[in-house]
Formats: sequence, C-alpha cells, structure tokens
Amino acid sequence: MIPAGTKPGATPGFRPEERVLKIEDADDPRLLPYRNVREKDLVGRSQRFIAEGKVVLNVLLSSARFEAESILILENRLNGLERQLSLCPEDLPVYCVSRDIMDEIAGFHVHRGILAIGRRKAVPSAAELLSSLPDKALVAVLCGIFNHDNVGSIFRNAAAFEADCVLMDETCCDPLYRKAIRVSVGATLKVPYARQGSIDEIMAALADADVETLALSPSGTRSIYDTPPAPRLALLLGTEGEGLPKPLLEKLGTARIPMSYDFDSLNVATASGIALSRFSRFS
Amino acid sequence: MIPAGTKPGATPGFRPEERVLKIEDADDPRLLPYRNVREKDLVGRSQRFIAEGKVVLNVLLSSARFEAESILILENRLNGLERQLSLCPEDLPVYCVSRDIMDEIAGFHVHRGILAIGRRKAVPSAAELLSSLPDKALVAVLCGIFNHDNVGSIFRNAAAFEADCVLMDETCCDPLYRKAIRVSVGATLKVPYARQGSIDEIMAALADADVETLALSPSGTRSIYDTPPAPRLALLLGTEGEGLPKPLLEKLGTARIPMSYDFDSLNVATASGIALSRFSRFS
Repeated sequence: MIPAGTKPGATPGFRPEERVLKIEDADDPRLLPYRNVREKDLVGRSQRFIAEGKVVLNVLLSSARFEAESILILENRLNGLERQLSLCPEDLPVYCVSRDIMDEIAGFHVHRGILAIGRRKAVPSAAELLSSLPDKALVAVLCGIFNHDNVGSIFRNAAAFEADCVLMDETCCDPLYRKAIRVSVGATLKVPYARQGSIDEIMAALADADVETLALSPSGTRSIYDTPPAPRLALLLGTEGEGLPKPLLEKLGTARIPMSYDFDSLNVATASGIALSRFSRFS
Repeated sequence: MIPAGTKPGATPGFRPEERVLKIEDADDPRLLPYRNVREKDLVGRSQRFIAEGKVVLNVLLSSARFEAESILILENRLNGLERQLSLCPEDLPVYCVSRDIMDEIAGFHVHRGILAIGRRKAVPSAAELLSSLPDKALVAVLCGIFNHDNVGSIFRNAAAFEADCVLMDETCCDPLYRKAIRVSVGATLKVPYARQGSIDEIMAALADADVETLALSPSGTRSIYDTPPAPRLALLLGTEGEGLPKPLLEKLGTARIPMSYDFDSLNVATASGIALSRFSRFS
C-alpha cells in the first residue's frame, strides 16, 4: 500500500521537509557558493556550475558525468520535488530558504526557486569522445561561438536529434555557464562535449577517427538536402558574422541551407537545428 | 567624377552633418518620443514602434508598409550612414545627439547608436493578405506565441525562407515590440503579417482562400520529411508548453519533426526554422 498523499515515484512515506536543512540566516557560510550567482562564472578551473530549475536538476541528478555538490530550494517549492529529493545521495546537502533569502543571496529573482551547485567529474578530450563513437554517428563542431544563448540552443538541438557529442574549439564560450545551461534545458549536462584546442586540432582528431566533415556555410557548394549523409558525420558551425575561417572552408566539403538571397543569414542556433534535423538518424 | 571621400551609394557631395539637426538639450520636446523606450510598448493603437540599428533602419526606409517618423543618431555614428541619410525624404526629421543624451533619454545604453520611430501605414486583415497569395505559397500561422524573442526569431526564419505572410491570432505578442523587431533583424518590417482574431477565424480565412493547413506537433501523425508539400501551405505553430489547442489538432492534418523521444521538445522558433526550410521553395 502506498500511503495517501505520496507522489508518484517518491519513496513511500518520504517527507521532503525531513530531508532538507532549513537555513534562516543569509550569512550562513553554507550558502556562500550561491552568493551573486547571476554574474559569477563559476566554471573556470573548478568545473563547477549553477543549475537552475526542476528540469535541469533532474538531468544533473541522473548524470554520469556531473554531480551535485549541494542544492538550494525555496521553501514553498519542496512539494513537487519528492521524487528528486528521495533519490539524492544521503551525503548531498539540500538547503531550504525563504524567498527573501534566496533572492538576496542569488542577486536576482530566482523565479524557478531551485538552484544547485554542480561539478563536472571528468573532462574528456575530443579524441577520447571520438574513440567511443558508434559506426553511425553525428557530431556537432563549433568554432568561435561565444554567445551563451546560441551555445545553449545548439546543445538543446544536439540533444533533440541525439548527436553523439559536441566538439568546441577553445574560442567558444563555456557550455556550463548558467545561461547556457538554462537555455539548453539541461542539454549541456546531457550531450558529451569537449572544449579545448584549436579548430585545426579538432579537425585532425576527426580525421584520425575517420569521421567525415561537412562545413555549413552560406557560400556552400551544395544544398544540405542534396548532400547524402555520411555514416559518421561531423557538422561544422561557425559564428554568425564571420562564419568559419576561409582557409578551413577551402579544405572542406561545404553545404548551405538553401534560402533567400535577399535576407540576412539565419541565426546559427536555428541553422544547427535545421542541419542536425536533416542529418539525424530520425529523418 | 565622384568627389574623393564620398561613400558608395551616397549622393555625390552629400554631407551627413548638413542633413541632421543637432540637439544639445535632453529636455527638447522633439526627443520626447524616444524617452524611456526600453520599457515602453509604443505599439498599441498608434501602430508606432522603435527601430534600432543600421540593418533595421535600412529595412524601415525601404518598406512600403511602414514609414519613419523621425530618426535619432549618435553624433559619432553619422559617418557610415551617408547612403541612408541621402535617401531619407526631405521632410523626415533626423536628430543627432551626444552619447550622454542618447543613453539618458532612451533609458539604456543604445550601443548601436541608431534609433528611429516608425509607424505602420496599413493594417491588413488575414483575408486581405490571403487574397493576394500566389499559386505557390507558404504561410506561417502562430497561435498563442507571446514571447518576443520567439516571435522575432520566427519572423527572421519566415524572411529567410521567403514565407509569403505570417498570420497571428490575437493572443500572440506584437511583432512591432522593440525586442521582437531587433531579434528578427528587421524581418517583422519585411514579411507581411496580420495579428487579429481567434485561431478559428484564421483557420476559416485559410479555408476560404484554399490554403492547405499542416499543424506542427510533437504528436503529429507523420514526419515533416514524409509529408509532401501542398502548393499553398500554411504551417501552424503553437506555444512550447501547451502546443496547439487539442480541439484544433483533432480537425487538422498534423506532422512532427522527427527527434529523440528522450528529450524535451524543440524551441518553437527552431521548430519553425526546420519546418519552413523543409517546405520552402528553395529546398
């Protein structure tokens, strides 16, 4: 018998308020990691990041590559998190605060009422990710994309079309930045990625791993719809303004999304969605 | 002979500083329409709006459906606008101010340094727009999309894939809102649209005009890639959370973008890009 009032998926009899530690002092040192998270880029060398909201928390708690260091929840959001809280490791601190304290600490109105500090456990290289690709694979390669919204959206698309991994050169922004995670709806914690080295080094790793490359460019020689998908394909995406570096484009097969010659090119995240959809195993 | 120093496209000998009126007092009543434009929604009944930046100004100045009422330019941005200014109607006021005055009046840092007050000249109905459709046509229909970024991005995609018009039900947000225009890169001034009435009224207008409809939905019965394009096709897009109303979906042909069953659906603007690309005459 499941006791009345227990939510589906939660351990019977589990009471969220018994799992959490209520903190009533905004200066409590345990809240320090959450202070001013709006502007702070936690990532750096520590590979720590801020996860926001229930959907992202679910991804974080079920991830093999990331782990939560602590969770901070608004007191009136505890109901509805029974399943998540009953599944947390016992030694994971879960704090609970009032609305005033949460907004004061975070430095902005946390309307989702759920924050967590996460940590990346391993930092694989592009070569390591490529070595485990299956025979049929789709990879997204990003060059110089430093807008957090665009990086977040591209990861969201990569997850939707089940790209096997995302490879980013060192000039891309960090996908663990708060806004990138949020825009990706947690996909930056889901799709394996590497962000290191130059685009030339990434191209060499792709060649070593026998992955065919296709650069998306408005000046591409073929339409993506007339380009047959290679079994193991890497799609290269550059910045909106500059695009991919010319010397690189000259060495690669290129394809374009066919569109009006009369209007500014597409947003790079939208372009990634169109191309990933075209070449995904679902299409 | 073109005098040395004249920019391409500008009338020879045209000097931008002679075309503009320098204003040095932030309280000058001629600047009143620009006051606090960050938060202000000018549109309402007046059909006025704020255009920002050179690209959007170009679209505004070349539009048949919109006109500029005045232009406000940062003094050090005059060079580089020779062509635009030489093409402005003589009776169009063009003001020029310092950085301090511009930011104070606008209420935010106008980093592009170019603002204009625009006005919609005519407000066509859905039926009027549909009556002028060619034999082969693509229409985007939006139901309940009230996020300015999404509406702006959808218009950008509609322009890129040369959709003939966009029809929005009355619960959609106004595409002339500042942020929607900016995100659309001016496309909301370019692609003809109507925003009025209920979705049922729009559906009736489409049926009257012999336009076939296809509703995009994650629960769609067919893949968009297995759905042949109708000569005159309207693509229906609903909100991300709720999607299109159930009673409507039951009456319509539906199609889905094939993707992972394991991940949250796509952003609605990205979905519009994928579907418009699939059904555009360029593909």
